[in-house]
Formats: sequence, C-alpha cells, structure tokens
Amino acid sequence: MTTTPEVAFNEQGLVPVVVQDETSKRVLMVAYMNREALELTLTTGRAVYWSRSRGELWRKGDTSGNAQFVRRVELDCDGDTLLISVEQVGPACHTGTMSCFDVAVLPAVTNVVPGDAVPPLVKE
Amino acid sequence: MTTTPEVAFNEQGLVPVVVQDETSKRVLMVAYMNREALELTLTTGRAVYWSRSRGELWRKGDTSGNAQFVRRVELDCDGDTLLISVEQVGPACHTGTMSCFDVAVLPAVTNVVPGDAVPPLVKE
Repeated sequence: MTTTPEVAFNEQGLVPVVVQDETSKRVLMVAYMNREALELTLTTGRAVYWSRSRGELWRKGDTSGNAQFVRRVELDCDGDTLLISVEQVGPACHTGTMSCFDVAVLPAVTNVVPGDAVPPLVKE
Repeated sequence: MTTTPEVAFNEQGLVPVVVQDETSKRVLMVAYMNREALELTLTTGRAVYWSRSRGELWRKGDTSGNAQFVRRVELDCDGDTLLISVEQVGPACHTGTMSCFDVAVLPAVTNVVPGDAVPPLVKE
C-alpha cells in the first residue's frame, strides 16, 4: 500500500477532488475520496471515489461505462484538496452532459476589471 | 439582493467553489462561500469567500493584491458545488505560486487506457 501521509482528510475522513479533463481542461465534477479510494486511484489508474450518499466505494464508470483514466494527481498547498486530470470516456455527468457544470450559469457581474475603483466590502 | 435559491449550501452553510483561470484554464484553488459571500461575488464582480479558519468574509486580493475578477459562475448538477472562472491578478496561492495545486504531484499509475483489462475492485 502506498502511503499518502501528506493528505489532510477532513473530520469525515474525506478529501474533495476536483476532476479536470486532460484535453479540454474543462472541470468535469467534484467528488470525494477516503484514504482507500485515493490509494486505489493512485495504484490502479482508474478514478475511485467514496459515495457519500451510498456510503461505499465507487469506481467511476463501472455502472455507466463512463470511466476516468488517471493522468495526473496534484495536492494543494494546504494538503486538503486534490486535483486530478483524467482521460474521460463519454460524459462525466450522470445527467448526460460532458461536465456536471454544464447545467446552470448564475447571473453575475462580469465586467469589472483591474484598475476599476474598489468600493469597500459592505457586509450585511 | 439577488436570490440564489438553487444553491444547496451544506450543513455549515457553505458551498465549495472551484476557481479556474479564464485564460490558462488552470485550476487555481478551492475555497468556500456562504450565501453572503456568493451574493457579493455575483453582484460586485470580485470573488468573495468565507474564511473557515478566520470565520469571516474575505475578498480575495484585499490584503495580497492578488484579486480575482469574476468572468463566469456555474453551478453543478447537484447544486452543491460552484465553478467560477476568473481573471487572476498575480499568483492565486498565498505561497506565491500561480495555483495552489502547483505544490505536489502524487505518485500515480497514469498509463492505463480505455480497452485495458479491468480487474475487479478489491477493497480492503
């Protein structure tokens, strides 16, 4: 078993994982791994997660066919978040879209640029 | 105040946010927003987070100068994770690297491809 001592799992024993398509760079989904899921991901080349709703390990694609092949696994500066780059087979989202983020764009102000006046942060 | 009823905040009243550079597509960091931080992000064009360690709102860049200007905010299929695309000024990470994920690559098997034999998922 590989050791991954530097990963800071949260109080539920989980670490959030950002999953990115290696080719398109699209962020596909965010899922969670426990230590066993991470070890399996690192040692088998297939993305394995912990399903919080079902309470079990879940190898992406075993049911849907939409597997993820691991290309790179990076840990962030705090050690509490992972970024994995994958080769995605088919759509990543169970709704049938390529990314789980293809569903909704929130209305936002997007035309502020560096150099614009910065108002004070007014909290509620 | 804009309404964002479709966002499913967790039991701590937070939603994880994946932050991606609009140009390079590099994933820069993962942070958290409460409802107020999200409203401020959507209405001011600057990324505002909730600091879990300090227990306060945190407008990215107010201290470091490394501000994030919002370009797109997307919600995932479950409504419990956000993806924001930003124009990043300077490095996103407090350690001085462009991305918080520029720190560590974990050793992983990365040469498995579609069509390879799939062994059963052996759990501990």
